[in-house]
Amino acid sequence: MSGKQPIITLTTDFGTSDYYVSAMKAVIISINRDVTIVDVSHEISPQDIMAGSWVLKNTAFLYPENSIHVCVVDPGVGTKRNPIVLQSNNQFFVGPDNGLFSLVADKEKFKAHIISNPDLIRKKPSATFHGRDIFAPAAAHLAAGTPLEFFGPEIPEIVTYKWAEASCTTESIKGWVLHIDRYGNLITNITSKMIKNLESKNVKIYAGTFIINGVVKTFADVDEGEPVAFIGSSGMLEISINKGNASELLGINKGAPVTVFAKKTD
Amino acid sequence: MSGKQPIITLTTDFGTSDYYVSAMKAVIISINRDVTIVDVSHEISPQDIMAGSWVLKNTAFLYPENSIHVCVVDPGVGTKRNPIVLQSNNQFFVGPDNGLFSLVADKEKFKAHIISNPDLIRKKPSATFHGRDIFAPAAAHLAAGTPLEFFGPEIPEIVTYKWAEASCTTESIKGWVLHIDRYGNLITNITSKMIKNLESKNVKIYAGTFIINGVVKTFADVDEGEPVAFIGSSGMLEISINKGNASELLGINKGAPVTVFAKKTD
Amino acid sequence: MSGKQPIITLTTDFGTSDYYVSAMKAVIISINRDVTIVDVSHEISPQDIMAGSWVLKNTAFLYPENSIHVCVVDPGVGTKRNPIVLQSNNQFFVGPDNGLFSLVADKEKFKAHIISNPDLIRKKPSATFHGRDIFAPAAAHLAAGTPLEFFGPEIPEIVTYKWAEASCTTESIKGWVLHIDRYGNLITNITSKMIKNLESKNVKIYAGTFIINGVVKTFADVDEGEPVAFIGSSGMLEISINKGNASELLGINKGAPVTVFAKKTD
Repeated sequence: MSGKQPIITLTTDFGTSDYYVSAMKAVIISINRDVTIVDVSHEISPQDIMAGSWVLKNTAFLYPENSIHVCVVDPGVGTKRNPIVLQSNNQFFVGPDNGLFSLVADKEKFKAHIISNPDLIRKKPSATFHGRDIFAPAAAHLAAGTPLEFFGPEIPEIVTYKWAEASCTTESIKGWVLHIDRYGNLITNITSKMIKNLESKNVKIYAGTFIINGVVKTFADVDEGEPVAFIGSSGMLEISINKGNASELLGINKGAPVTVFAKKTD
Repeated sequence: MSGKQPIITLTTDFGTSDYYVSAMKAVIISINRDVTIVDVSHEISPQDIMAGSWVLKNTAFLYPENSIHVCVVDPGVGTKRNPIVLQSNNQFFVGPDNGLFSLVADKEKFKAHIISNPDLIRKKPSATFHGRDIFAPAAAHLAAGTPLEFFGPEIPEIVTYKWAEASCTTESIKGWVLHIDRYGNLITNITSKMIKNLESKNVKIYAGTFIINGVVKTFADVDEGEPVAFIGSSGMLEISINKGNASELLGINKGAPVTVFAKKTD
Repeated sequence: MSGKQPIITLTTDFGTSDYYVSAMKAVIISINRDVTIVDVSHEISPQDIMAGSWVLKNTAFLYPENSIHVCVVDPGVGTKRNPIVLQSNNQFFVGPDNGLFSLVADKEKFKAHIISNPDLIRKKPSATFHGRDIFAPAAAHLAAGTPLEFFGPEIPEIVTYKWAEASCTTESIKGWVLHIDRYGNLITNITSKMIKNLESKNVKIYAGTFIINGVVKTFADVDEGEPVAFIGSSGMLEISINKGNASELLGINKGAPVTVFAKKTD
């Protein structure tokens, strides 16, 4: 990268054994060579919109302002869902309007346009590869300074899901496992703020058939092989096993419920 | 990337858990820093020349003219197969002459030279890692403008295979599954042109123990869980299952025969 | 990349399905855009310090002098192990002082500083993601020319392990399998020099329940399906099967003993 080249990041579920990712890069470069392309991930689980959204949320805002984040996890490619360009929180996003941007768009303050201008996409776009034919060209044009208005009509709302929201009282929090990382750490949708809001700092955490007492600073605070709960690097409650794979050892998968109870101090 | 730097793409079966890919990049950079390196794929199935060829065919020509495509899928490394630089269809290719370039070289019009000039490769090349010792340096020198003639003697022919060619009459086409992508889509060697050439637009497709009626626009044209045939983003007949993994659900693997029959309109 | 931009390489066990790698890149770019980031590998086996060290050793010194190699395989993140910047053999290294740099640091001549200056890391670093919060910023500042002294106190020793050292006499060498690559090749900690030092060139190699006679030039020197020993591209004794997966077919895993005997010439 050099100087102030626009940054285009790529997040997809394409894997890297096919030609899909390379095709997107080639199309971007052919339209606009004065960009820096950064691979975020191409290993989002196939068609897992929630996982794509999660990865975006945790990295997009670490990039310089006005970076362009192309995200393609698109089970409905070729159906009626809209391809969009989106501006929110000082970043740009390009991809299908299927919920992928749920965790990155400010619901009160965003600008979204459908991509429909045929001059800004490939001729005769295929029905099944909008990454190459619609999103890559849109990103390249956006990086060249094309305003959102040029892409197509503005839309007042985008599709959003509510995965991230656990339900809380001052006595308990009911959430679930949002993501399992490579080490088997269980990342929940329970935020550090929710835990702070509980009546008592003295908590019990129920996950699967296990009960964990208290939230510590990091997994290294317990013995090797012990389960432990702490606030992870994403700001969410994580359940880990020190030097072990918590998902495998506890038999807990994505979507499993996790409950936090504030213990009465009696 | 910046301005008009030469582009070097990398396609290998090296995986990314070893030092092999990085060694190639380091050698390129050390010889010629004024290049843009693009990873196409390092997850080609080990020693699967056909898969490497397929990925190359589907991306090389999307890049700007005169890009340099290094491709290393090389089961015969250290044996008599030639390392070559190849120019065809306004692109450069570097790799072993083992059939990898079957789908990208224009048989009528190409220029190929053996890489044998010791000044353009690493000193004391190993017998087992020509990616680092021969192909990476050759690509770096090519990017610096070294003419093909400098690399070694010209050869009049390169090794080519005929995987891509299904056999057709006006009544039927006999092909097979060329590639299975990450989603389990079955990509055949049957082109859209072959299907257009059939006597009747009314076709039946036999794949494994399944029969599919007709070619539709995209997998979303059928109900979820239904098998479907359409012309994919590579221009080839693909068999998919809407929101499912066709390879697993139909029990069909790479190499399986696929037959298209034109139905009599009676 | 362009001109003489500093090079930052990344070697981690983060995988690429999470946001971890992207977060590191974003932090580097946000501090210092005038760098070239090169992915070495993010597929080091989780928490396998030896594998990280092995990959570093085999690629770091192929890069231009003064490249910056960030390596994060960090089972002890958040515990007392030191985060360090290290200069040795004309390269820079950044990562945890947990043995990762065993194979790249010159024991006689290196300079190592703890990273403790709060101005050169992220505010409120997390306990579990030093890659993003400590190592990425340190690398970005190093690339901008910040001297080692600014990062924190110098340390006179770094943690080193002795994996690489097989034990030898003039009659035999006892080593083990250090690494298994994607093709199933067994790479040992036995160097070509050790083999040259044996009394006889006529050797027998014991690996698992197999005996291999002699060291040849490359795997293609034997019939397909035959086991074979040769000096690989890393300068180490490797055991392969021509066109086969030696690890699977011989049932030999990482850490398995390999013994070389010099045969009496009688």
